[in-house]
Amino acid sequence: MSRYRITIEYDGAAYRGWQRQDRHPTIQLAIESALETICGSTVLVTGSGRTDTGVNARGQIAHFDLEASIDAGVLINSLNAVTPHDIAIIALAETRPDFHARYDARSRSYRYHVSTAARALDRNWRVRVPRRVDFLRMNRSARPLLGEHDFSSFCRSRSTTTNRVCTVTGAEWAAETRDGDWCFSIEADRFLHGMVRAIVGTLLQVGLGRLPEGCIPGILAQRDRTAAGEAARARGLVLQEVRYDRADSRDE
Amino acid sequence: MSRYRITIEYDGAAYRGWQRQDRHPTIQLAIESALETICGSTVLVTGSGRTDTGVNARGQIAHFDLEASIDAGVLINSLNAVTPHDIAIIALAETRPDFHARYDARSRSYRYHVSTAARALDRNWRVRVPRRVDFLRMNRSARPLLGEHDFSSFCRSRSTTTNRVCTVTGAEWAAETRDGDWCFSIEADRFLHGMVRAIVGTLLQVGLGRLPEGCIPGILAQRDRTAAGEAARARGLVLQEVRYDRADSRDE
Repeated sequence: MSRYRITIEYDGAAYRGWQRQDRHPTIQLAIESALETICGSTVLVTGSGRTDTGVNARGQIAHFDLEASIDAGVLINSLNAVTPHDIAIIALAETRPDFHARYDARSRSYRYHVSTAARALDRNWRVRVPRRVDFLRMNRSARPLLGEHDFSSFCRSRSTTTNRVCTVTGAEWAAETRDGDWCFSIEADRFLHGMVRAIVGTLLQVGLGRLPEGCIPGILAQRDRTAAGEAARARGLVLQEVRYDRADSRDE
Repeated sequence: MSRYRITIEYDGAAYRGWQRQDRHPTIQLAIESALETICGSTVLVTGSGRTDTGVNARGQIAHFDLEASIDAGVLINSLNAVTPHDIAIIALAETRPDFHARYDARSRSYRYHVSTAARALDRNWRVRVPRRVDFLRMNRSARPLLGEHDFSSFCRSRSTTTNRVCTVTGAEWAAETRDGDWCFSIEADRFLHGMVRAIVGTLLQVGLGRLPEGCIPGILAQRDRTAAGEAARARGLVLQEVRYDRADSRDE
């Protein structure tokens, strides 16, 4: 038996998120269906974590097992020929038999893309925000997110996860190449359900002057989802990268 | 009467190019229809130049006249609310009454985006190329395009344009941020019909080793479209910027 690791880019607009579900298209199902078409038997795919309905990825990682070893170049080309155009396998490699896309992940990073201008080419993964949003103010407000905190205030209330402690190692707004385009990057060992969208939605309230600049520590302390702002739309969110120990980090 | 100048971004996939046509959706028609919805009367829009079926833009420029002056902020928001999601008015300003988007343009620049990896998020404006394409070889081959030449060899044969002389002021392949993504940028005073796609298609043949590295001067000298390679696909092409004299170059 051979274990493969894949890096997946997807436009989540047409999908009910990563996780397989009855009667709804999901990314996991699309990849499993492609593998079944190629291999002629059922193949289960394990992702590094779920992404929500409409959320995108540039670097989702998953693993799966095949009974016989297949040449990596042939397998990636076949998969890309069979998957829909909004899903791309951007790297594939045979990996150690006990590699686990979820349990071995050391950190995840997300990006949230916005623009103060109307956009057409990036419309599937960038959200328009008002021109008056103050990005420097949002950037200053984001700093207290860094470090180990209980993120209950930024966790969807119907989540059943009991451990709400995450260690955030990066949280920053930065201007992108085009005038008016900005991106929020956040990295952590783990993320709770709806966490990035709740953080971005709250920071946008700060950027619009509706919440005070220093509000984040107080919101964290309340450990209550209603203390934070409304979740930002899924469309702007991209799972950027999943990191593993160095030995598992080679893409191909 | 007030003249307005607009900067337009569009995903050309769903359109038969810029120019208004009977019975086919075009960018020009979509913007004219949006203006008619807003103003209640017919408004003609003049672009800096045509783009072909499926070609995209980040910075197409156009002008139009309105009988009464309308606040620029109101007008751009109204237009973006009415145009389809694959067309965005990214800037709008009232301009001098004799500004002409086409005749006043000093130069145009295009970008052609490719990737050696499969892509999902940029799939509407990036074309996949084989991994073995030699970009440094293509970049060296592109240099003889610079300067004033007769570009008949890179002009669609059914074009009726008699003056085939263009002055190219930039022609370069460069790596983009993501591993595997490359972009060809070309700037000239004017472009002939199908010129960028013919150039990119020819350079890709050089990058694949099917044409010799120094082939461009010989192809130019033949002044015959059949001397050059097949046109690259429209999908990877983006009209990046149109330049005017400094006084007309302010976007808003």
